Amino acid sequence: MPRLVTAYSNPLVRHARDLREKRRRRESGQFLAEGLRILTEARESGRVPRLLFFAGATGAHPLVVRLIDAVEGADGEAIETTPDILAKLSGKDNPGAVMGVFDEFGPALDELDRGAADIWLVAERLRDPGNLGTMLRTGDAVGAGGLILIGECVDPFSVEAVRASMGALFTVPVVRCEWDAFIGWLRRGPGQLVGLSLDARQDYRAARYDAPAFLLTGNEAQGMPDDYADACDLLVKIPMLGRADSLNAAVATAVMAYEVLAQRR
Amino acid sequence: MPRLVTAYSNPLVRHARDLREKRRRRESGQFLAEGLRILTEARESGRVPRLLFFAGATGAHPLVVRLIDAVEGADGEAIETTPDILAKLSGKDNPGAVMGVFDEFGPALDELDRGAADIWLVAERLRDPGNLGTMLRTGDAVGAGGLILIGECVDPFSVEAVRASMGALFTVPVVRCEWDAFIGWLRRGPGQLVGLSLDARQDYRAARYDAPAFLLTGNEAQGMPDDYADACDLLVKIPMLGRADSLNAAVATAVMAYEVLAQRR
Repeated sequence: MPRLVTAYSNPLVRHARDLREKRRRRESGQFLAEGLRILTEARESGRVPRLLFFAGATGAHPLVVRLIDAVEGADGEAIETTPDILAKLSGKDNPGAVMGVFDEFGPALDELDRGAADIWLVAERLRDPGNLGTMLRTGDAVGAGGLILIGECVDPFSVEAVRASMGALFTVPVVRCEWDAFIGWLRRGPGQLVGLSLDARQDYRAARYDAPAFLLTGNEAQGMPDDYADACDLLVKIPMLGRADSLNAAVATAVMAYEVLAQRR
Repeated sequence: MPRLVTAYSNPLVRHARDLREKRRRRESGQFLAEGLRILTEARESGRVPRLLFFAGATGAHPLVVRLIDAVEGADGEAIETTPDILAKLSGKDNPGAVMGVFDEFGPALDELDRGAADIWLVAERLRDPGNLGTMLRTGDAVGAGGLILIGECVDPFSVEAVRASMGALFTVPVVRCEWDAFIGWLRRGPGQLVGLSLDARQDYRAARYDAPAFLLTGNEAQGMPDDYADACDLLVKIPMLGRADSLNAAVATAVMAYEVLAQRR
């Protein structure tokens, strides 16, 4: 049976609220996800929150009922609360119907099966949580095997990244590692490393992609370091007809990933 | 000569700060843009701010000097201020070197020359300022004639949209209008209306695009209304291999726009 919590000072409410901060996520190994759609996506992917908050009025919604059952069946706790507390947890005036506290997860690099997918996304020093979430959403759509984050990237479990992923955080494996570990792993098996670079001569539509292709996107402001570009098997560019010299990083990744997908189909 | 303002209570500082709010932008017809790169893009596109704020330490930077000259040459005002005030204007801890207050601009629908470009972007009820700015940035890259915003869209002059556009707000014309006015204008001349729809049967790579093509993207959560889809000359879909049923709106627009561009090249 869900219990009722209406005080913002409640320790579980405070714990959930604290997970909006990176430091608290790191300490606890937990993160916050919001919204019936995203939490249902999580449940269907086998991820059940430890704590589930829902507003009383939505407790009879069939999808909320299934979430409550799943949480209680996994020895988690379902907590009925007020829209006001949900808004405080969410940081939005108009919060989702549910919020969940999940344990962080994610395979190690060595656990990835590179043969499981033709496309893999790789991003280095990605700084914007919206870009990270959007890349996961695109990764889900193109059937990517995962997103590999190189170096100091934004936290994939931040509230903004989880939100922008629209649930793809729960379906697309995310690995965080350093460049040397990534290159070492990559070269121990098949895999074409494709870098997106403003300096490349090869047009992304004229290039031919192998499977699996690892699509590397550099930092939003600086692109990738020269030695990363040198390590690529193929460097491609996307035409820029206007005054700007680059696309949004998540957009560039998607344009390239859909070209690879079209060549594989 | 720039004058020095160090008080947050200064009326010009307060005016600039107020432009972070939509209501104040509507009242004054002005907006705020931040960063040396974006303001230089604006200057090179012939848009000079009415008010320019810069931190004293950056006043000798050649691009800041050129901005100051341009502003003063256009009877605007250049104001030297403190990093602290710039941070307050920006809303970021780490603000850009300059902030500008610009008059809003934008052609009317009837002023667009549809023959000037092969690709036009059209978005209806776009709600996310980051998506709007990213679409402008993509529009610049594909040589789009402009972005036409249908119905109740987020403000293209919001701080977040201007920032996400990376300066493309100053190079890609933006028109705001209602659907009936848009369709009336469109049908008075050549133009293929291409709708992106989850229900379409035609794959976006198999479709053939005319020039000018008007690429219509619907609301982030709901897609486009049925009667808008019915009005399209062509409905296309982008393959979705995963669990999610849609891409980010700015990503979907970019994937489609780059396909049209590839067919035209």
